[in-house]
Amino acid sequence: MEKANFGVAGLAVMGRNLALNVESRGYTVAVYNRSSARTEDLVQKHADKKFVPSYTVEDFVNSIERPRRILLMVKAGAGTDAVIEEMLPFLDKGDILIDGGNTFFEDTIRRSKHLEESGINFIGMGVSGGELGALQGPSMMPGGQKEAYDLVAPILQEIAAKAPEDGKPTVTYIGPDGAGHYVKMVHNGIEYGDMQLIAETYDLLKRVVGLNQQQLAETFKSWNEGELDSYLIEITADILTRKDDMGSDKPMVDMILDRAGNKGTGKWSSQSALAIGAPQSLITESVYARYISAMKDDRVAASKELHGPVQTFNGDIDATIEDIRKALYFGKIMSYAQGFDQLRMASDYYNWNLPFGELAQLWRAGAIIRARFLQRITDAYDSNADLHNLLLDDYFKGIAEKYQDAARRVIALAVQAGIPAPSLSAAVAYYDSYRSEVLPANLIQAQRDYFGAHTYERVDKPAGEMYHYSWYDEA
Amino acid sequence: MEKANFGVAGLAVMGRNLALNVESRGYTVAVYNRSSARTEDLVQKHADKKFVPSYTVEDFVNSIERPRRILLMVKAGAGTDAVIEEMLPFLDKGDILIDGGNTFFEDTIRRSKHLEESGINFIGMGVSGGELGALQGPSMMPGGQKEAYDLVAPILQEIAAKAPEDGKPTVTYIGPDGAGHYVKMVHNGIEYGDMQLIAETYDLLKRVVGLNQQQLAETFKSWNEGELDSYLIEITADILTRKDDMGSDKPMVDMILDRAGNKGTGKWSSQSALAIGAPQSLITESVYARYISAMKDDRVAASKELHGPVQTFNGDIDATIEDIRKALYFGKIMSYAQGFDQLRMASDYYNWNLPFGELAQLWRAGAIIRARFLQRITDAYDSNADLHNLLLDDYFKGIAEKYQDAARRVIALAVQAGIPAPSLSAAVAYYDSYRSEVLPANLIQAQRDYFGAHTYERVDKPAGEMYHYSWYDEA
Repeated sequence: MEKANFGVAGLAVMGRNLALNVESRGYTVAVYNRSSARTEDLVQKHADKKFVPSYTVEDFVNSIERPRRILLMVKAGAGTDAVIEEMLPFLDKGDILIDGGNTFFEDTIRRSKHLEESGINFIGMGVSGGELGALQGPSMMPGGQKEAYDLVAPILQEIAAKAPEDGKPTVTYIGPDGAGHYVKMVHNGIEYGDMQLIAETYDLLKRVVGLNQQQLAETFKSWNEGELDSYLIEITADILTRKDDMGSDKPMVDMILDRAGNKGTGKWSSQSALAIGAPQSLITESVYARYISAMKDDRVAASKELHGPVQTFNGDIDATIEDIRKALYFGKIMSYAQGFDQLRMASDYYNWNLPFGELAQLWRAGAIIRARFLQRITDAYDSNADLHNLLLDDYFKGIAEKYQDAARRVIALAVQAGIPAPSLSAAVAYYDSYRSEVLPANLIQAQRDYFGAHTYERVDKPAGEMYHYSWYDEA
Repeated sequence: MEKANFGVAGLAVMGRNLALNVESRGYTVAVYNRSSARTEDLVQKHADKKFVPSYTVEDFVNSIERPRRILLMVKAGAGTDAVIEEMLPFLDKGDILIDGGNTFFEDTIRRSKHLEESGINFIGMGVSGGELGALQGPSMMPGGQKEAYDLVAPILQEIAAKAPEDGKPTVTYIGPDGAGHYVKMVHNGIEYGDMQLIAETYDLLKRVVGLNQQQLAETFKSWNEGELDSYLIEITADILTRKDDMGSDKPMVDMILDRAGNKGTGKWSSQSALAIGAPQSLITESVYARYISAMKDDRVAASKELHGPVQTFNGDIDATIEDIRKALYFGKIMSYAQGFDQLRMASDYYNWNLPFGELAQLWRAGAIIRARFLQRITDAYDSNADLHNLLLDDYFKGIAEKYQDAARRVIALAVQAGIPAPSLSAAVAYYDSYRSEVLPANLIQAQRDYFGAHTYERVDKPAGEMYHYSWYDEA
């Protein structure tokens, strides 16, 4: 029997769609799922396609040509370890396992080391684009052995989305072991930030400016025609046009409970930022915003107890909408500046040598955060590969300086109206902190030295020289 | 030879001062340090005191009466494991090891389990108060076996600080295994928040209102005479009166480099909040503020590139100072509301049954965060032991509602002036989020369902029932 060119284990919607995508490029694809029903369903529905189904791990592995290229699309966590251990006895040296799940990067580092002992290559690959992206062209972030990547690159490049700007496939080699999953984690954090920024502007447009449903939809639609052009703004505009699918005459969005879930990647991104010393406030605020949203019962109770200001908006509606648009773009720039700064610091911390410019490139299509904006980041790194912070690039610096007044007006408006804008506030605080030659941390250092003798550096002495002041009699 | 009543291993400043404190209450104290110089120094300087020095772990353990009560004051981390392993062969069933370091609570849980196998009791104890507190009376947060706590309680109660309000010692049983170190971790997080809030108000008074050094010192001194009365405000006022100790005529605080260090407990506190779903934005912003402060070179470079608004303050100086004072107290209330909410959620998560009211009690003296304010929290839990959130207590609700206008004006002022106020901003955003019956998370749920089929709940259906909308043709 002819061997398959590629294998996919795990046939839930993402695995199934990626298998269909690979097969559509002319490859024979071995497919396997722990419960056989999904395998049978796939091959029955697509009897004309070059799928090779197996119902045991051994048969599955044996049905693939060597060196084997096997994509695991199982639920991240213990399930990934289980399938790897089941597969290991049947694999040969040089085979390549690709974990396409939303796996925590430290697990990927651990598994990579473990498999290396058996001579098996391991690629931890972030996949963005949702179900439709998996089928039609996702954005992919593979990390692992470079020589293993080279063996799967031809297939990945074919199934990837292609950037509208230059037709480049949205996949590239990210770096060793956990680098791919780390970059995907920060991508997801940035996605949390984008979504929260959009939610805050939606809330302001609705609750402060007082736009009705149609005006809200039209506002986001018009924003999507300018520099904010992006998948998330596009679907926001679309969502806002939809009516309830269960019969009421209300907008669909008003029938959805305001309690946001999460799958943990935003949280990981913030936890890692905290671990490596990266000030990633905007994404973190967006994670916390989901947590507060989840405390619905608390909020309903508190809303009856805790009063806020009485809102009276009497500003210019069009000018305020434009201010809010600029605030959103300003916030987005701060969020990406923080995200890329986190990637820079992680790259140093883990010795990954991440290709920053290419990261922006491969998010230009396929990815949930795809946006015209990403070409600007691509350009920034093209003109300076060692760019230290996005805010120091001429384009982003120019926009930040130009839009900051609008952002400041919007924060003042939100705060005075009692509408929460945690991520927009974090954006302005970050901009003002980052451009502050002097911050009041000197006082914090004095306090730490006072109560804990933690010592401090002096402004007139070399950095790293520590001093202690006799605040009180220490005898 | 008469056996010692208590042992202290690790004689750096905190261990040495705690040993002196215990001895001063009439106990004979066995002392040991890995390098003998510190032991010799202690017993030579205090030849009249009842110290029993040892120079090997075996002699040290044997010099203590059974069941042994041994306080470990070593650098948290691998050093703690090392000294435990060294001591273990010489310990007897029922002995009690107390780890008084700033240990990560998960390490304490792990060590507690490990030692239980040998029948050794283990108490993970947070100690707050700095060097002076250790000597004169710290605040202590012990977690471990209740029966072991009962055996050390008499000594701990004697060495603890006593609350000025009712003379109660600032120590109580916190809960099993990691509970004590967890509470200390959140205490430290709250300390980060307090310090950052003070730093932000100092910055605003200085850079926006334009107070000179003497006015700054006097302002904090007068604040310390009102409801903000606390150790950290007190030392801030004191710090601001000090002149450079190296000869310049400048205020000491202006000679200290604005690059804040940290020992990791604030970071852990935020990472844990993220892990258990607790919206702890204010403390997290204060951790990130330290991180940005540490990026001094970046900030110096960025300050030349990124311009902000031109500041012109022409408000009423006294009224603005009072607004800033109220904003600080408002921020403090939000920070503690978040911190206690995190403790409530952690208590549920880890099954610790934490005594919330007593936590506030035992921070009233000795602890770095000691403050008149803590009696208010004590009162709040006294009148309602099941208080869900501090903001729902009459006193805190009343202050929050009364001071919010001042806090809002201060944020608007800071944002318009280009002075970063990340923690104050987070405070207002939290208040407005927590009291929002409806947040824009419905839009986030719609987006998640659109690109990832993550499903959502409906406002007109029972919570937990998940729905999916056909946003596009999924065939």
